[in-house]
Amino acid sequence: MVQATALPRNEGGIETAIGILKQQFGERLQTGQSIREQHGHTTTYIVNQMPDAVVFPENTGEVAEIVKICAAHKVPVIPFGTGTSLEGHVNAPAGGISVDMSKMDKILEVHAQDLDVVVQPGVTREQLNTYLRDQGLFFPIDPGANASLGGMAATRASGTNAVRYGTMKDNVIALEAVMADGQVIRTAQRAKKSSAGYDLTRLLVGSEGTLGLITEITLRLQGIPEAISSARCSFPSLDAACQAVMMTIQYGVPVARIELLDELSIKAANAYSKLDLPETPLLLLEFHGSEAGVAEQAEMFGSIAEEFGGTDFAATSTAEERTKLWQARHDMYWASLQLRPGAKGISTDVCVPISRLAECVGGAQDKAAELDIMAPIVGHVGDGNFHALLLIDMDSAEERGKAEKFMAWLTDTAIAMEGTCTGEHGIGQGKKPYLEKELGAATSYMAAIKSALDPDNIMNPGKIVTLE
Amino acid sequence: MVQATALPRNEGGIETAIGILKQQFGERLQTGQSIREQHGHTTTYIVNQMPDAVVFPENTGEVAEIVKICAAHKVPVIPFGTGTSLEGHVNAPAGGISVDMSKMDKILEVHAQDLDVVVQPGVTREQLNTYLRDQGLFFPIDPGANASLGGMAATRASGTNAVRYGTMKDNVIALEAVMADGQVIRTAQRAKKSSAGYDLTRLLVGSEGTLGLITEITLRLQGIPEAISSARCSFPSLDAACQAVMMTIQYGVPVARIELLDELSIKAANAYSKLDLPETPLLLLEFHGSEAGVAEQAEMFGSIAEEFGGTDFAATSTAEERTKLWQARHDMYWASLQLRPGAKGISTDVCVPISRLAECVGGAQDKAAELDIMAPIVGHVGDGNFHALLLIDMDSAEERGKAEKFMAWLTDTAIAMEGTCTGEHGIGQGKKPYLEKELGAATSYMAAIKSALDPDNIMNPGKIVTLE
Repeated sequence: MVQATALPRNEGGIETAIGILKQQFGERLQTGQSIREQHGHTTTYIVNQMPDAVVFPENTGEVAEIVKICAAHKVPVIPFGTGTSLEGHVNAPAGGISVDMSKMDKILEVHAQDLDVVVQPGVTREQLNTYLRDQGLFFPIDPGANASLGGMAATRASGTNAVRYGTMKDNVIALEAVMADGQVIRTAQRAKKSSAGYDLTRLLVGSEGTLGLITEITLRLQGIPEAISSARCSFPSLDAACQAVMMTIQYGVPVARIELLDELSIKAANAYSKLDLPETPLLLLEFHGSEAGVAEQAEMFGSIAEEFGGTDFAATSTAEERTKLWQARHDMYWASLQLRPGAKGISTDVCVPISRLAECVGGAQDKAAELDIMAPIVGHVGDGNFHALLLIDMDSAEERGKAEKFMAWLTDTAIAMEGTCTGEHGIGQGKKPYLEKELGAATSYMAAIKSALDPDNIMNPGKIVTLE
Repeated sequence: MVQATALPRNEGGIETAIGILKQQFGERLQTGQSIREQHGHTTTYIVNQMPDAVVFPENTGEVAEIVKICAAHKVPVIPFGTGTSLEGHVNAPAGGISVDMSKMDKILEVHAQDLDVVVQPGVTREQLNTYLRDQGLFFPIDPGANASLGGMAATRASGTNAVRYGTMKDNVIALEAVMADGQVIRTAQRAKKSSAGYDLTRLLVGSEGTLGLITEITLRLQGIPEAISSARCSFPSLDAACQAVMMTIQYGVPVARIELLDELSIKAANAYSKLDLPETPLLLLEFHGSEAGVAEQAEMFGSIAEEFGGTDFAATSTAEERTKLWQARHDMYWASLQLRPGAKGISTDVCVPISRLAECVGGAQDKAAELDIMAPIVGHVGDGNFHALLLIDMDSAEERGKAEKFMAWLTDTAIAMEGTCTGEHGIGQGKKPYLEKELGAATSYMAAIKSALDPDNIMNPGKIVTLE
């Protein structure tokens, strides 16, 4: 386990703030050990740093009230969605108040004609899509977990179909947020585009709760496509698979998803999901469009795949077959863990220009072999983003050391290829050492913005930037 | 003409800075009256406020040098691309140094496999597309003018095909910029997506030179589509045309362009471009895709149009016919001016949710009639963005007053419809009064960011935000 540095605690302030909050929120302010632990980091190798209390606001006014109280007493405020962050975003290294958004789960307005929706931050992705289905609409961003939309906005999440629909930065039209002084702002109007001043929407998207607490989100929606079809294709080598991806993107085939599973991942999926796929690199695709359109896309991909030695090409447009294929992809995390029962999974998240993808993935496989780490790889390869899941015995200092070595190597390699240390998981606590390596002097301007908007450093302290 | 407030001048600092710059840049530092006037605002009703000198850097190091000299002497720095801003962005209300980027016009790297390109800020849109054509690639953003890509990034420009390809915010992957202290930063790596810290790329896109000077831009490219076709269709009413637009977008027809011309614009186009179009609202479309794809798109739009009483539907896929149709659209500004020879054109730029578009455009027509202003309207209606071109005798105080009344009414109306005062032209000097109306408290955080990153207010002062 990795222990993020604890920050100085303002004991008196915390005690006072909890007292005031308790009076105002009654049972909606909790301080029990177990609920506090649940609101610290629980998903990965990063050690839990629990908050001192958890509060459950029901509306924006209450969030503003909470922030004002915490601001007055210089107490940290940490937003909490569903807790699926992989990088310690919800940890409380200086203690403070976790603001659990689960009661702010209303879908406020659906504007079908404008293809947008206004939601509270606690609404989850699946909840929204269930709600929208009858209207023929959907929200495309799918990071895998059934995360809250507030959390997804805060971490600039993306996932399997970003290759077609973009990431949260492309799909948030406007935000309402409570800033560090307790003031409520709207970052933009509901119009589809705007040149009105600094893009506060995109400054808050990906700011991980360090600049403001998101209390309302206006999201772009898509019409559910007339037809959806899937395809899979095995390749003789990683390089061949990556070449096929590049060519597909270059030809402008508007694939909705294009996922890579390496040999080891296939082995895991075959065992876990009772499949019988050839144990060579696999591409898994989804096409959205008209009936004719998806057929054309599948055909174009099929001929590209053939050019690069693709075999076992199988296209399908029945929901049942499609579901089976994608279920295996969605179960990859659990399937991979079964490769080494008892091990913990540590996910990397680099993203490189796709011309460097084969080299980066291949290098990662070689490095894992060299260090004797089992690390199946899956990737959102249309974007150049992939995850190696390091299967580590966390009780072994030697293995933890190897994992750290691997992560440092991979990040350095990706950065040298003009890539990033994080395609979609965010910086949080886990990737702070890499941010400065990646962006150098730019990080000092991030710190300047943080200081200007949150001079007392109460908004999710210890994440993204380190203030002097 | 509208005179933006002059700001206090730092005479001593300006004189000193010019002296130092003259030594370093020799003939590349110009102080002649005529070149200074050309580097103030020249395109619209806003009065020219010329800089004290114009400098022509050739690389990033020189830009950093210029900013360091100006920072040391607290002298304003105003970036200049091609001068096509409509909102006074290049004016120098406190004097200072115009940094003309025209010598920084190199296309540095084309990464065809990654569909991106790295350019200097003085490269123009047409220059880039001419260069890319042989490689089967293009950069889609088309604001009409042959603007510089640095200027387009700085104003978050968009234009006719944003409905499909997005705006500059969606198409800039990373920036290199010189900040107010002269330090050079890169805002992001070249990877297609990233969750690494605050989105400085999108903070600088649309910041109009007030936070940093853009010295290098990494842009997303597109493959030139296999087929391009156009269509036009006349409608019995504005409302019918707007309903057809909404339905087209809702059905997910991936139109590349969908433009509205109102009756008065058609009258202007018929006269200027020797056309014979019915004088009723017209939609002009462009489709990109495969041969089969564009045919399908045209057919889908055709049947939607029919449903709303569309007539004279004409689709074409020969380059010649297409060019003629779109030439008329591109010439609208000149065609409109001919409706009232001698008048100046003042362009509005509101953008509203498309469900409110018909109401907003219709309201604008009524208001123009009420005030007896001639104001043909064209619009990027897939985004809800339209421009009324007020044809005004600028020597008449009465007419200027009417124009101001119209603009205030239109902006208030758009904001009340959850729209924005500027879809793509930016705030500059011209729209500053509306920004606070639109975003209220959020503007104080814009000012805080500006103060933090540019404490001496030397970066294009007097634009977007007003500092205390």
